[in-house]
Amino acid sequence: MSLLGAIEAGGTKFVCGIGQEDGTVVERISFPTTTPEETMAQVVDFFKGKDIAAIGAGSFGPIDPVKGSPTYGRITTTPKPYWSNFDMVGHLRSHFDLPIEFDTDVNGAALGEATWGAAQGLESCLYITVGTGIGAGAVVGGELIHGLSHPEMGHILVRRHPEDKFEGFCPYHGDCLEGLAAGPSLSKRWGIPGAELTPDHPAWAMEAYYLAQALMNYILILSPQKIVMGGGVMKQLQLFPLIHAELRKQLNGYVQVPAIMDDIENYIVPPQLGDNAGLCGALALAKKALAAG
Amino acid sequence: MSLLGAIEAGGTKFVCGIGQEDGTVVERISFPTTTPEETMAQVVDFFKGKDIAAIGAGSFGPIDPVKGSPTYGRITTTPKPYWSNFDMVGHLRSHFDLPIEFDTDVNGAALGEATWGAAQGLESCLYITVGTGIGAGAVVGGELIHGLSHPEMGHILVRRHPEDKFEGFCPYHGDCLEGLAAGPSLSKRWGIPGAELTPDHPAWAMEAYYLAQALMNYILILSPQKIVMGGGVMKQLQLFPLIHAELRKQLNGYVQVPAIMDDIENYIVPPQLGDNAGLCGALALAKKALAAG
Repeated sequence: MSLLGAIEAGGTKFVCGIGQEDGTVVERISFPTTTPEETMAQVVDFFKGKDIAAIGAGSFGPIDPVKGSPTYGRITTTPKPYWSNFDMVGHLRSHFDLPIEFDTDVNGAALGEATWGAAQGLESCLYITVGTGIGAGAVVGGELIHGLSHPEMGHILVRRHPEDKFEGFCPYHGDCLEGLAAGPSLSKRWGIPGAELTPDHPAWAMEAYYLAQALMNYILILSPQKIVMGGGVMKQLQLFPLIHAELRKQLNGYVQVPAIMDDIENYIVPPQLGDNAGLCGALALAKKALAAG
Repeated sequence: MSLLGAIEAGGTKFVCGIGQEDGTVVERISFPTTTPEETMAQVVDFFKGKDIAAIGAGSFGPIDPVKGSPTYGRITTTPKPYWSNFDMVGHLRSHFDLPIEFDTDVNGAALGEATWGAAQGLESCLYITVGTGIGAGAVVGGELIHGLSHPEMGHILVRRHPEDKFEGFCPYHGDCLEGLAAGPSLSKRWGIPGAELTPDHPAWAMEAYYLAQALMNYILILSPQKIVMGGGVMKQLQLFPLIHAELRKQLNGYVQVPAIMDDIENYIVPPQLGDNAGLCGALALAKKALAAG
């Protein structure tokens, strides 16, 4: 069985790992994201001399994951200093003569959950992370969604909760989903960090209102067979039953499939790969690179 | 070149056609949708004795297009009298020993535009029809979207226009996209049929506000390479520039790709197959059935 290299490229830290084709991570390392030169030197050092057969990288974005595009493999218009237009695939190729698969961190996580996690064996799934930002990736017909670019599902427009006075904090759209429901919105709206709000605080019903609304739109557009919700905010497990109830209320019987009508607790679930979702996602991308050759 | 059978199964009328693999329709017939017995007898009569190699059917819904599902091939929970749970694929198979492809009318239309129309040669596209209802289909990675079921994109939730007092007419969701922006909403909101509203009537700016909002969400979730807008309401061609401008306003520079930043007029377009979009869609499904064997 070949060893695979995995890179979870985050805006705050990078996690690199060596794993197997069955999803087992055998070695990992983590370091802060500074400049591309410094950070990528650590990535290269970690993989050098290891007997890996392919590399998968799940990255913060926006990126260009469209093969054949002139800017394929780059982190594109990120506001993060030094990283705008950085050619990650080109840099990796200059050091490693290996198959490389490069995608968004959330597309990677969706593929990881479809390969070894909560959506194993399914043709389609959605992975959404609710943390300092909101992002989602999706597998459709066994493949990750690409098109013009990659999905940016965290920025869809949602209806405001009638009692919500918070203006939203997205620099582009103000009160889009991310602006109203990502982690920072909790502390900005309620004056204390989300992690300190008690499980029965009304904050969570409002949070569920927004997240259920987003899921309703994702379901009506993508019809995924499983929805996996991860990220820091989703550690508040009381959100799951609130989201299940709110989603059924908003759909109002419209999508009459057993998964939603009778078994929603098993339809919208936490990541089965837990805190390894990101790294396992990159590992799944490496496995895909290996298969593609 | 094989001849193909195409069925555009609408709630009001059925259109059947014989076509070629290049998208040419050589013969067509149309009749009202009454009971399954009566209507399907006309379908069978039309195709009997014709030398067709496969059949494609694009149908009103909801349907079950998921192969392997116990209810595959059926029109499922439609409120249309007599048609609920009708097994269309089973009925066709009992008369024709041919490969059959069955999907929603809008998925068919998306495939038709990707095969011979405005999205020819692309890996992904979205087709949306705005008429008595709103529906959309999509090609992702060359394949039509299925999952739990099929997309129902017309029912996504949208923000109300601040000046809109109309409550919406969707029996499930009131003021979802279909409830606020399908054809009947125009006459109900303004008191005269949409077709009689002058091109400079404020109705169109409000309509563009809702449709652009929906497109924004579709783009952020699916990232399609082309968006094709058809249906009766979209015959009002003044809507296109209004939608282009409103979409760019709402996205606010967020998706920085040339198709949207520099060339939106060629990104969101009318169907190239025109009024044949539905029948050509069914023909594209037949072509797919033939290829799959």
